[in-house]
Parts: sequence; C-alpha cells; structure tokens
Amino acid sequence: MNKEIANFDYYNPTRIVFGKDRIKELSTLVPTNKKVLVLYGGGSVERFGTLAKVREALSGHTFGEFGGIEANPTYETLIKAVKLVKEEGFDYLLAVGGGSVIDGTKFIAAAALFDEEPIHIFGSGIGKGIPITKALPFGTVLTLPATGSEMNSGGVVSIVAKKAKLGFGSAVTFPQFSILEPELTYTLPKRQLANGVIDSFVHIMEQYMTYPVGAMVQDRFAEGLLETLIEIGPDVVDESNHDYNLRANFMWTATYALNGTLNKGVPGDWASHSLGHEITALYHIDHARTLAIVLPSLLEIRKEQKYGKLLQYAERVWHITEGTDDEKVQTAIDKTRAFFESLGAPTHFSDYELGEEVVDALVSQLESHGLTAISERGDQTPEVSREIYKNAL
Amino acid sequence: MNKEIANFDYYNPTRIVFGKDRIKELSTLVPTNKKVLVLYGGGSVERFGTLAKVREALSGHTFGEFGGIEANPTYETLIKAVKLVKEEGFDYLLAVGGGSVIDGTKFIAAAALFDEEPIHIFGSGIGKGIPITKALPFGTVLTLPATGSEMNSGGVVSIVAKKAKLGFGSAVTFPQFSILEPELTYTLPKRQLANGVIDSFVHIMEQYMTYPVGAMVQDRFAEGLLETLIEIGPDVVDESNHDYNLRANFMWTATYALNGTLNKGVPGDWASHSLGHEITALYHIDHARTLAIVLPSLLEIRKEQKYGKLLQYAERVWHITEGTDDEKVQTAIDKTRAFFESLGAPTHFSDYELGEEVVDALVSQLESHGLTAISERGDQTPEVSREIYKNAL
Repeated sequence: MNKEIANFDYYNPTRIVFGKDRIKELSTLVPTNKKVLVLYGGGSVERFGTLAKVREALSGHTFGEFGGIEANPTYETLIKAVKLVKEEGFDYLLAVGGGSVIDGTKFIAAAALFDEEPIHIFGSGIGKGIPITKALPFGTVLTLPATGSEMNSGGVVSIVAKKAKLGFGSAVTFPQFSILEPELTYTLPKRQLANGVIDSFVHIMEQYMTYPVGAMVQDRFAEGLLETLIEIGPDVVDESNHDYNLRANFMWTATYALNGTLNKGVPGDWASHSLGHEITALYHIDHARTLAIVLPSLLEIRKEQKYGKLLQYAERVWHITEGTDDEKVQTAIDKTRAFFESLGAPTHFSDYELGEEVVDALVSQLESHGLTAISERGDQTPEVSREIYKNAL
Repeated sequence: MNKEIANFDYYNPTRIVFGKDRIKELSTLVPTNKKVLVLYGGGSVERFGTLAKVREALSGHTFGEFGGIEANPTYETLIKAVKLVKEEGFDYLLAVGGGSVIDGTKFIAAAALFDEEPIHIFGSGIGKGIPITKALPFGTVLTLPATGSEMNSGGVVSIVAKKAKLGFGSAVTFPQFSILEPELTYTLPKRQLANGVIDSFVHIMEQYMTYPVGAMVQDRFAEGLLETLIEIGPDVVDESNHDYNLRANFMWTATYALNGTLNKGVPGDWASHSLGHEITALYHIDHARTLAIVLPSLLEIRKEQKYGKLLQYAERVWHITEGTDDEKVQTAIDKTRAFFESLGAPTHFSDYELGEEVVDALVSQLESHGLTAISERGDQTPEVSREIYKNAL
C-alpha cells in the first residue's frame, strides 16, 4: 500500500449562502435574464412555506415549477423534466429540497444539454458512459442535511425499468450556489434527522477509515467532523430542539462530510455504501439505516485491515485512553454501534425481523452488480461481504 | 457579544493542483489562446530550476517574463508590470513564487483592467477605495507555504512613496489554479520554513482565538490545523529533512490557514498582525518573526477577553489536563511561546537588541494608521496595545 499522500486536485466552485433569512437573496443569486425551472419533491416544501418564500424571492424572474421528484429520484420522472426544460426553453434550474431533489436536478441539468440520449450519461452496462461536458446552470435551496449534494458534483439516479441505481458526475455539475438555512430543518421529523446524522457520519468514515497515509489535515478534519456529530447527534434527533447553533453545526458538518475536502490524496472505502444499497434494494430499508447495520459489522470483520486507522479513531475521536490497543479498537467499534442505536437506528437485521435468508440474497446481488473486489484495498470479496452480512444478523 | 454563528458566504473557485510533478500540467491549465506573462521575484526560482520547468511546460504558449517582484511587493514595481501588460497585450498572468509574488500578481491582474488610476484600488486615505470588479485571469505556482495567497482573493502591497502597506481584494482576484508541489520547498532555508510555520499558526489563531460562538466545525478545523503545525513544526524547520509527507502536510496546512474556511460565521481578531506590521515597518524584522513577538504577549494581556477560547485551546490543542483553568490557560500561552522559540523565532524585543524606546514609537504608528479600536471586540485601544508591546520587551 502506498504510504504517501497521493497527488490530488481540489476544485469546488459552489457558493454557499449560509444562515438566517437567506432565501430572499435568490432575487440576485439567480440571473434575471434566465427562465428558471424550480424543482422539488413532495408536499413538504409547499406545506412548510419554503416554496412560498422561493416564489416571493423569484417574483422578478420568469419561472416555472416541476414537483414530484421522488426520494431516490427515478430516471423515468427526471426525463419528464428534461422534456419540459427543452420544450419550454428553461435555461436555469433551482432545486428546492434534499439530496434526492438536488441529485435529480443535476441529472436534468446535464441531460438537457447532452448530445446523445440521456441514458448514456450512465455506464455500468446500462448506457455508454459518455462524459458530461456541459450542463445548465443551477442553484439549490437545501432542506435536509445528509447527502452533501448541495456542495458536490455527483448524483445518484434510479432507473426503474432496469432495477438499477447509478451514479454520475462531472466538473460542470456543481451547483452555482446553495442556500443553507439551518432553520429549514426545524420541521424535519426525528427519523430524517437521525438518517442525516448517520449518513454524514458514514460518509466521513468511508473516506477516513481505511489505512493511514499520513494525510494529517484530512485526518484531523475528518476526526473533527466525527467528534462534532457524536457531540450533537443526540440533540439533533430531538425534533423539538430548535437551537439555532445546533442545527447550523449539523448542516455545515453534513455538507463538509461529502464536499470533496476529506478524500484528497487518501484512499476511500465505500464498501458500507455498496453493501447498504443492496439492503435498500431488496428490503426497502432507509439508506442511512442500512449503513447503521453494515458499518459496525464491517469494522469488526475488517478490523485487521483497518487496524491502524481504527486505533487512531479510538484515541482521537472517542478519546479512549484505557486498555490495550485491541481493547481500544473494540471499544471504539462498540461505541460506534451504540451511537447509531442511540439515534434510533437499529444495527442488526433481526431488528427488522430479517434472518439468515438475507445473506445469500444480498451476496448474490453484490455479485450480479460486479461488486466482488471492493474497499480501499480491493480485497473485499463476496466471501468477506458474506461474513459482514452474517455478523450483522 | 453575539453567541450565535453569524450568517456567511463561502466561495472559493481556485483549483488546487497538488502533488509531485504537476508543473508540467501548465501546458493544459493555461489556455493556449492566451498571451501569458510569467511573474517572479528574485533569483531563487531561476537558480533552483523552477522557472526552467515552467518555461518547458509553456513551450506551446506565447509568453513573456517579468522578474524582480520584491518580498513585500511595492506598488512602484508592480505598476511597471501593469504598463508592460497593457503595452504588450498580455491577457493571462502566472505567478511563480511565494505570497509576495502572488499578491503582486493579483494586484497587476486587477490594475490592468481597472477603469481608474490603479492607486484607487486602495482606500485608507491613499486612494478612493473603488471596488475591483474585473481582473485578468491568473494562476500560480507556489514555492513558499506561508501566506495562503495561493487560495484566497486578497493581497497586500507596499506603497513606498506613501510609507504605507495596504490590503485589497475582491471576488474576481482568486487564482484560477494554484500548483502546490511540496518538493519545491526542499530548497528553502530554515528561516523561511520557520516563518511559514509561524505565519500559518498565527493566521489560524487570528480566526480562532477570539470568543466562543459555538461554531463547532470551524473550531475543530482550526484546532486540527494548529495541532498539525505543533506536531510537524520542529521537523519542518529542519531544512535537510526532505520527507515528502512532512512537506505536503505543511503546504496543505498553510493553505487552509487562510483560504476562507476558518473565518466563516465567527469573529476575527487580526490585532497581532496590526501590531506586527508596525514592527516590520520600523525595525525591518520579518513579518512572521514580529508575530512571534506579539502573539504570546497579546494572549497574556488579553487573557480575560479571550478566556473561553484560551481554555478550549489549552485543552484541545495542547491537551493540557492538569491544573486549574487559570493554570491551563497560562500553560497554553507558555507552550505557544516555547513553540515559536523552538522554531528559532525569539519572542522578545530584547532578543533583537531593542528596548523600551520601541513602545512609544510603535503605538504612535498604530495611532497614525487609525488602529485604535482593533481586535474581535474593537476594544483594543492604543493603551492596550502599549501594554502588549511593553509585555514583549
């Protein structure tokens, strides 16, 4: 394994507009000579008044609306928006919602200017995987801290007809701006808050919990974000706690968890995500809650491969000073599991009344998706994944 | 004092090109249809072969050169470059050097397209302080980690005729890209390495050592960078230690110390810089070395105002667990002073054979520059600054 910091590029042109009462600045953030399509999901942005604020701020603009983008946005729905954009000549998009709406908007922005059929934005045997080189400009108003999509250039789209969930991204699919109003999180239910904390936590772990390469800044930043989530998590999931700083720290942490800061020059794992996606696909468990099942089990099974970083995690993130190194590592894993449980996310299949039958089914899914040599070392075979699933029963 | 995280915008479009053997990528980073002016300082970039690599990478471009930008770049020199840019029609700039060359290049980029006389870029009674709204595009090749100028939009220029050192900046004076090759630091002498460590350390402290507002991410990031500098500082100043990761961590830390990450939504001090600038102006002591004189003394005099953050600094950055809170705070200040001394930077005027006579002279300078209500609270009067200077004798 390379023990040096690898070469990297850092590039993130998204403007973050953070704080109280910022939505009104859409009036100047969105160029007035553009025809704007406002995109959103279900009824909550209407019900809680966010859309009303957006409409008010855009009153000097020409704009239309497209609602109904699903959680886990589907290609089939997004293609309808692409058609609308082309037919009506919209030339600026504004996503109002969480990661699903923002991911969907990124796809629409790219697909609207794509020279080939939009399906070829995807690879993985579904499309030709042709690079995205142009996209409509777009901004976002974030309502749910979790995915980091508001400050990165990637997205995930489900293709219902193919039973596939595929990623895409490019240097031209960064939001031009993202408005982060912590107060918009005050209407979120506990389950979504917990999902946001866990999703952010595991995003950080995927980029941190690998093997040490001596990237001190990246490690310290990851550790600081993890410590922050551990500190605020229990209060964040109290949906009645509307402390401004609490929600502001949650929102900024979730953004930094996946905005291209932590992964610079270091290895990445992402096996928890791969194993979790299969659970969502087969058993319809929330994405973040699948991560809560997989990660603690994975850390136990992969203890040897991740030993150096696990010990660092134990000492720096959980501040464990007692015991042998082995004991510190195990305590850190136990505390990780207990943290997820404390947020209301169970960490075993049995909590969902699922038993041994899931193991073969999930491993088959991994194999059918070619996920047979995953993790930072590429050595997580289907047999290792099987152990991880079994260990989480 | 406001105890909430303030509203903020985050925007940083600079592309960082980090690692080994990246200068050759200038061939594609700089558009080929541009006429490029390469700007540099003294002979070291020529002597150590950096300019040769730049010329090789730009061999497919049309380019000219302008050398001789001073440490503390002067308006008088930069104006000559502005004249050259206009006469010869250069439309892209490339800074090759440290903070001085990069700051100077930012000024040239703005002045070349400025509608009024360039002196009016500055305020402070020297010029009209007209906002910069356009600038030539430019990139940088960083040779000296210290100022963070490679990833921010500000600069400082000395106007010799006015005996003034003034700042400027705008949203259009970010570098388009900055190449950070840690190996370029291998030729730096100990004094410049120490200056870089101290300058970065104090940049972080100016944004962190104020009063708590509960900005957990910003605090954790600042603490992580400070811990990193404390850990690597003694090795960094060993000019013969060419460990790649050591220099890479130093370079990335120095960039993050002042790239607009740490100051988001939190108060800033910058009094150490104000007091230090006057020392440089009167006694020609290196900028970073003036900070090593001022900061420990300032922390002692301003202990009460900064108590909350000083205690946090003691516990989280220096990991001091023993003693009363007062003892922890004093130990942290003592350790800060000892850290600077260990890098070879004295922390008293007497070390420079300067005595009591400096106090009146320096306070007069502060007053003449209107620096009579500085610090995060605006309550650092000339009398307080006098105490800080006296305490550093």
